[in-house]
Amino acid sequence: MPGSKKYVYDFNEGTAEMKYILGGKGANLAEMTRIGLPVPPGFTISTGACNEYYQTGAFPDGLLQEIDTHREALEQKMGKVLGDPDDPLLVSVRSGAAFSMPGMMDTVLNLGMNDEAIKGLTMQTGDERFAYDSYRRFIQMFGKVVLRIEGGLFEDAINELKEKKGAKLDTDLTADDLKELVQMFKNIVRDHTGREFPTDPKEQLILSVEAVFKSWGNKRAVDYRKLYKIPDDLGTAVNIQTMVFGNKGDDSATGVTFTRDPATGENVPYGDYLINAQGEDVVAGIRVTEPLLNLKVEMPALADELLKNMDILEQHYRDMCDIEFTIEQGKLWMLQTRIGKRTAAAALRIAAEMVEKGLITKKEAVQRIDPEQLDQLLHPQFDPKAKIKVLTKGLNASPGAAVGKVVFDADTAEEMGQNGAKVILTRWETTPDDLHGMVAAQGILTSHGGKTSHAAVVARGMGKPCVCGADAIKIDSKNKVFTVNGVQVREGDIISIDGTTGSVVIGAVELVPPKPTKEFELILGWADEIRTLGVRTNADTPEDSEKGRQFGAEGIGLARTEHMFLGDRLPIVQQMILAKNEDEEKDALTKLLKVQRDDFIGIFKAMDGLPVTIRLLDPPLHEFLPRQIDLKVEITKMEMSGAPEAELAPKKELLDAVERMAEMNPMLGLRGCRLGITHPEIYKMQVRAIMEAACRLKKEGGDPRVEIMIPLVAHVNELDILRKESEEVVAEVIAASGVDVDYKIGTMIEIPRAAVTADEIATVADFFSFGTNDLTQMAFGFSRDDIEAKFLPRYLERKILPSNPFETIDDGVAALVKMGCDKGRATKPDLKLGVCGEHGGDPESVKKFHDIGLTYVSCSPYRVPLARLAAAQAVLGAGSSGSK
Amino acid sequence: MPGSKKYVYDFNEGTAEMKYILGGKGANLAEMTRIGLPVPPGFTISTGACNEYYQTGAFPDGLLQEIDTHREALEQKMGKVLGDPDDPLLVSVRSGAAFSMPGMMDTVLNLGMNDEAIKGLTMQTGDERFAYDSYRRFIQMFGKVVLRIEGGLFEDAINELKEKKGAKLDTDLTADDLKELVQMFKNIVRDHTGREFPTDPKEQLILSVEAVFKSWGNKRAVDYRKLYKIPDDLGTAVNIQTMVFGNKGDDSATGVTFTRDPATGENVPYGDYLINAQGEDVVAGIRVTEPLLNLKVEMPALADELLKNMDILEQHYRDMCDIEFTIEQGKLWMLQTRIGKRTAAAALRIAAEMVEKGLITKKEAVQRIDPEQLDQLLHPQFDPKAKIKVLTKGLNASPGAAVGKVVFDADTAEEMGQNGAKVILTRWETTPDDLHGMVAAQGILTSHGGKTSHAAVVARGMGKPCVCGADAIKIDSKNKVFTVNGVQVREGDIISIDGTTGSVVIGAVELVPPKPTKEFELILGWADEIRTLGVRTNADTPEDSEKGRQFGAEGIGLARTEHMFLGDRLPIVQQMILAKNEDEEKDALTKLLKVQRDDFIGIFKAMDGLPVTIRLLDPPLHEFLPRQIDLKVEITKMEMSGAPEAELAPKKELLDAVERMAEMNPMLGLRGCRLGITHPEIYKMQVRAIMEAACRLKKEGGDPRVEIMIPLVAHVNELDILRKESEEVVAEVIAASGVDVDYKIGTMIEIPRAAVTADEIATVADFFSFGTNDLTQMAFGFSRDDIEAKFLPRYLERKILPSNPFETIDDGVAALVKMGCDKGRATKPDLKLGVCGEHGGDPESVKKFHDIGLTYVSCSPYRVPLARLAAAQAVLGAGSSGSK
Repeated sequence: MPGSKKYVYDFNEGTAEMKYILGGKGANLAEMTRIGLPVPPGFTISTGACNEYYQTGAFPDGLLQEIDTHREALEQKMGKVLGDPDDPLLVSVRSGAAFSMPGMMDTVLNLGMNDEAIKGLTMQTGDERFAYDSYRRFIQMFGKVVLRIEGGLFEDAINELKEKKGAKLDTDLTADDLKELVQMFKNIVRDHTGREFPTDPKEQLILSVEAVFKSWGNKRAVDYRKLYKIPDDLGTAVNIQTMVFGNKGDDSATGVTFTRDPATGENVPYGDYLINAQGEDVVAGIRVTEPLLNLKVEMPALADELLKNMDILEQHYRDMCDIEFTIEQGKLWMLQTRIGKRTAAAALRIAAEMVEKGLITKKEAVQRIDPEQLDQLLHPQFDPKAKIKVLTKGLNASPGAAVGKVVFDADTAEEMGQNGAKVILTRWETTPDDLHGMVAAQGILTSHGGKTSHAAVVARGMGKPCVCGADAIKIDSKNKVFTVNGVQVREGDIISIDGTTGSVVIGAVELVPPKPTKEFELILGWADEIRTLGVRTNADTPEDSEKGRQFGAEGIGLARTEHMFLGDRLPIVQQMILAKNEDEEKDALTKLLKVQRDDFIGIFKAMDGLPVTIRLLDPPLHEFLPRQIDLKVEITKMEMSGAPEAELAPKKELLDAVERMAEMNPMLGLRGCRLGITHPEIYKMQVRAIMEAACRLKKEGGDPRVEIMIPLVAHVNELDILRKESEEVVAEVIAASGVDVDYKIGTMIEIPRAAVTADEIATVADFFSFGTNDLTQMAFGFSRDDIEAKFLPRYLERKILPSNPFETIDDGVAALVKMGCDKGRATKPDLKLGVCGEHGGDPESVKKFHDIGLTYVSCSPYRVPLARLAAAQAVLGAGSSGSK
Repeated sequence: MPGSKKYVYDFNEGTAEMKYILGGKGANLAEMTRIGLPVPPGFTISTGACNEYYQTGAFPDGLLQEIDTHREALEQKMGKVLGDPDDPLLVSVRSGAAFSMPGMMDTVLNLGMNDEAIKGLTMQTGDERFAYDSYRRFIQMFGKVVLRIEGGLFEDAINELKEKKGAKLDTDLTADDLKELVQMFKNIVRDHTGREFPTDPKEQLILSVEAVFKSWGNKRAVDYRKLYKIPDDLGTAVNIQTMVFGNKGDDSATGVTFTRDPATGENVPYGDYLINAQGEDVVAGIRVTEPLLNLKVEMPALADELLKNMDILEQHYRDMCDIEFTIEQGKLWMLQTRIGKRTAAAALRIAAEMVEKGLITKKEAVQRIDPEQLDQLLHPQFDPKAKIKVLTKGLNASPGAAVGKVVFDADTAEEMGQNGAKVILTRWETTPDDLHGMVAAQGILTSHGGKTSHAAVVARGMGKPCVCGADAIKIDSKNKVFTVNGVQVREGDIISIDGTTGSVVIGAVELVPPKPTKEFELILGWADEIRTLGVRTNADTPEDSEKGRQFGAEGIGLARTEHMFLGDRLPIVQQMILAKNEDEEKDALTKLLKVQRDDFIGIFKAMDGLPVTIRLLDPPLHEFLPRQIDLKVEITKMEMSGAPEAELAPKKELLDAVERMAEMNPMLGLRGCRLGITHPEIYKMQVRAIMEAACRLKKEGGDPRVEIMIPLVAHVNELDILRKESEEVVAEVIAASGVDVDYKIGTMIEIPRAAVTADEIATVADFFSFGTNDLTQMAFGFSRDDIEAKFLPRYLERKILPSNPFETIDDGVAALVKMGCDKGRATKPDLKLGVCGEHGGDPESVKKFHDIGLTYVSCSPYRVPLARLAAAQAVLGAGSSGSK
């Protein structure tokens, strides 16, 4: 008896909207079937079945019977039966989740082959060699995927046979050779599973379905979902589809194509194909593919039909489609379609051009761009003025440039990346197993594979530069070296790659930020029309301020003054901290006043007419001194080697100071406004520098808009005192300068208590800026310095936290932000409320901040466009639909 | 024109209820006047006038005129005029705030004396010597208090004169001598102020009033208010009262008395007096006083009148009164009364006896006890079994025993106290300037002064042991040594004092905790009937558990398991942390399991039938290893002195481990449940030990009530995982033991995010316990280790925070607790909600927790009685009225 639930859907039962039930692939196969495109018949097992399998560890009741029913119906429709010795049906069994996870899960092709079916296939095709090749491919794939036999064993057998037969290429093997190979493969299966290869196609089918279910939970799929924040409980569907063969001779072919260029967005069909091949050969990049245009020459009628179908699909989906097709002995089959992944530049161009053509609206265009992906447009490029000598060129598979040390395997890439090194992962070709190394790398370089190869697709999704198919590069991964035209490059050597041009260069090329395209400006302009949330930038220098302004920032939300205390100013800062008397301290403060004033003049100039929020000194003073442990060891060494007291004394004095200032938990110690209260002279100097800079510019005709921000306030009294002290200095400076400058004094809300008592704090604040970095640290009790290395990865892996709370604002922390907003506005309805933590540049967080009702977010200059777009999408109420 | 506000009140215009306007002294003088007791006439300048003086820096408009009017009315009533050469009026000018601040502010006596008035006083009293003695006293006091002339100058002049005249005692000086002294004093004033001594009594009066206002802001008064949490903006009133003289001969006297014994509470009049003296002589302990009973012999009629008045006052105030009186030439005057300060034992006895007599209700009795003061009843006493040799005996001025190093001045006491040393402040007599030293000391010992002397009164208020008037002790404070019968005791030598018996002993006497009195049990029993808030104890050992239970704890709210990881267990713990393989780790865990199980057996036994909340391991593991910096220095030294690699290697290995575990901010790092998740074997071992202990006791007929508490939860998922892991172990142990033990699994709410998301956390928690120590740390972003030394004192001084948030729960933190309660109960209406931070033993915090609606508080065993009392007072809705 079948269960009451429906688990299996024929392709003609579904639509594109059913992707949560049928998976993306199944839903789109159904949709293509529905609109009359030539899709090989089949059926889909729902994601619900997979989820029940994970909950109970077994197939749900009734599933087997439903599969059986649909299999029979398929056999009836096709007039063929699985395993039939006369005219056997062969099917593929493919995973297909709601969101594309390319290459992450398992697939079985040619299912239904056995010693009977081979006869039928040979008879039907008249091609014994093809039949045995299909058979051996099936055993190999089934053995690896379903029976979990090490794939290398099959490869070794092929190589052994080729050697024995004196064959160079796989294609040199004859039908008889392949027959022998089938036997060898069967032996491998028997030796490694303890039983004969399963010849019953029904058993093959059920085992394959279960293997696909299982592959939803394999490590690389789990990693992928973590990376792309795809929930674990969606499950995968399984598509059982009649096999068609692109490898039935020279009137057969298989290919992958996009309706537009996914790298540039240009409105031209774009793809690769191989004559006489199976689809896996194209995707895996094993053979060098032909560009789609060549098909017009080789098979003109079929090419026209394909192009017509592509046009139908694009009009139907109103978006660029990614299509797999096969031509079997002169007949075109559409095997799969989905909304195609694209680079950010392509996404923008396609959306803009589709608006122009009236295919979509401006709002849809704005909704379609993935803000995270915009980041790749803002990646640096080779400096055009740099004199570079190109070592070799590959395909420009994912734009942007990168510089890093060459590494030859993913583990090393990850390890070096975690230690802070920038690396270029260099591989013959990447596989899903390399994912963690790609995440860690600055860029990816492969010597093989096309623009639709694994490396290219994944790198584009990640927004990482990628050069692929650079076939002049000969990789010796065992010895960790590659050679190009006699030049050797070893692991650790620095190279530069440019994924926009495909260039590979030895050494570090100077990088420059890219110029945004005209579509970039156009669509962000539309976003600006839509959004209600302001976007400012975090910037500590005139350069960053200008950059942020170029990217559309409407002011500075956070200028950190401590960054101005480093570099050549450090000795002055140390003099101030270590001053033995008031004179020494005053002298240091006077010097700092001068340089800080110049800093502020530059920033105010860059942001003329826009608000500039300057945060007074925040970190603990001991951060400006050497580390206690280093000093102590140095002194111990000096003492033991009998250094004279005259040399030791100043070191010891410094150590004394460092020890006096040492703190158990500096994050929770003497910093922020606590410094302002215990060392009032520092804040007074900073306020003076700010106001002197503003007054000077005002005199010169500028329009500085000053916002002084006092950090780390926990209690209204702290802000009250510091506000009064600041106002005294401000009044002095204004009186002395003779010009009036408007200014505001506000605070960061970054301490939980401040959020809880924001109604009180608002009585003495002109604005709030939520410092969500520290607020996250304190709300969670997480020291970012410690937990990211120690236990956060484990927390993410076990899904204790849905995402890194330092990247995407956590709901609990967001509740504190909301509380702070509501309480602040209860006291002062027109209180300006911003966010200046890193979350201000995270699209998902930006949407939450919009919902909470903040006035603006502030983020690093390069994140400003993302924030503008995300803010618009927040108004439109829908997430991006571009890339998932 | 007088201002519209009224600043001055005649004594017959006020009542006892007006203490916030008239100050305590003024209100009580008015009350005594109202009920017909003989009070020297006068008037009071309101606290409002003082506050306006502080706001504007000047007398408020109209005040001077009001003073003038009342002065004239007083002169009319008395038939005497200030400065009159025939019959001059003399007045005292005394401070008087709403709360008693004994000796903290200034007083001027004999005001109105000048070269004219002296004639009238001489004429009226017929005692020229008395008149000149009054005059010189006035100049001396006015010079010191109002004109700020160093007091020693006047003392030096007296000594110079005595030497010149060959006088031994002050009383040996004749009228002529005193006349000469008056001139010498006038010269001192002229030399040190550049002007003549002000002879106009009206000017004297105004200057004195201003001096009293100013004394509200002097350092010792500010310190005192900080100590007793008296607000700064209450201000002091000023009482101008007709002088009466206890020094007009042997028919005159002055004294201080209590209606009951303030040390024991016994219902007997208790006081001291001096014949022929002014009141200051009694209070300052300069002369050795007579006990009050002697007055019955020396002045029987007056003694009866005094006792009758005392009885009237006690019946009127329904409490023990503290009274100052003066007898002037056979006429009794009541100079002052107030509710008397008392020891905790006395407070309990008085309240209990007044309930017995029907004077007050049980609720009033409960309300009258200051919970903080109860602490002194719980102070240790000399072990009765200790063989002690009493060095000398003084007065048993404040009960309890103390052991510490002798110090001879307040500054040293403070300095040594801050460095963690226990000290006994040993003085000839204390003055208000010694306050900071008394705060720092374990106990106070004086060689002079009675039970109403400064040292005695203040020590009782602080609940510190005090022995005073130990006159066998000869103090040489310059050389920092005292001598008793030839025995020398130097600064730093250890002595023991017993304030209950008055004994002083050389060396450290073993101390034992005291047995509570029967009134203690009685009144706490009443408190238990009233309170609704449960009280548990924090205890990590069977001993502490028993102690807490004795004191009335209804279970354990917090048993910290990490304390069981120290001492002789430390090597095992280190073995566990540093284990190189699973076997080593398992071995350590097995050993720990055994010792932990024994720990829990002891605790469950002590708390049989009551709930025991056990917190799983909380601190970071590196706390159990040596410090990184120490190891690094040690290794550096070994390396430089050429230590063999065999010795170095294990050190380096240890250093590696320590460095791997080092954290920037351990408070926010890998601890609490984060350890439980990353090192599941530790929590599993602990849960096993808890349950094995409970099952064993259950088998033996015991009634263990297990509550397993998981610390530092920030996200419901943490608790969810650890709950499941714990339940697995629990099920195993229960299955293996064959008995069933009820258990609960709950969590601490000590992370702000946990409070904010308590509704989610409650879905998997059987109970919450608010860890208000950590919650305060994270809500404020205050590392307790760092801020208490670095900036908290400054914050308290500047009143940025009203009190130390680690002692009394802060309002913002309390808001988080309330949020956690409300959200937790919204999910589970019957959720048990407790507090186990130190605030659980702070009376003020206990009241807040009652108001928030918690189920129980938990505190250290010795604080349990305080919490019981405070919880009852919270129900009654009023603060203690006992001691302020």
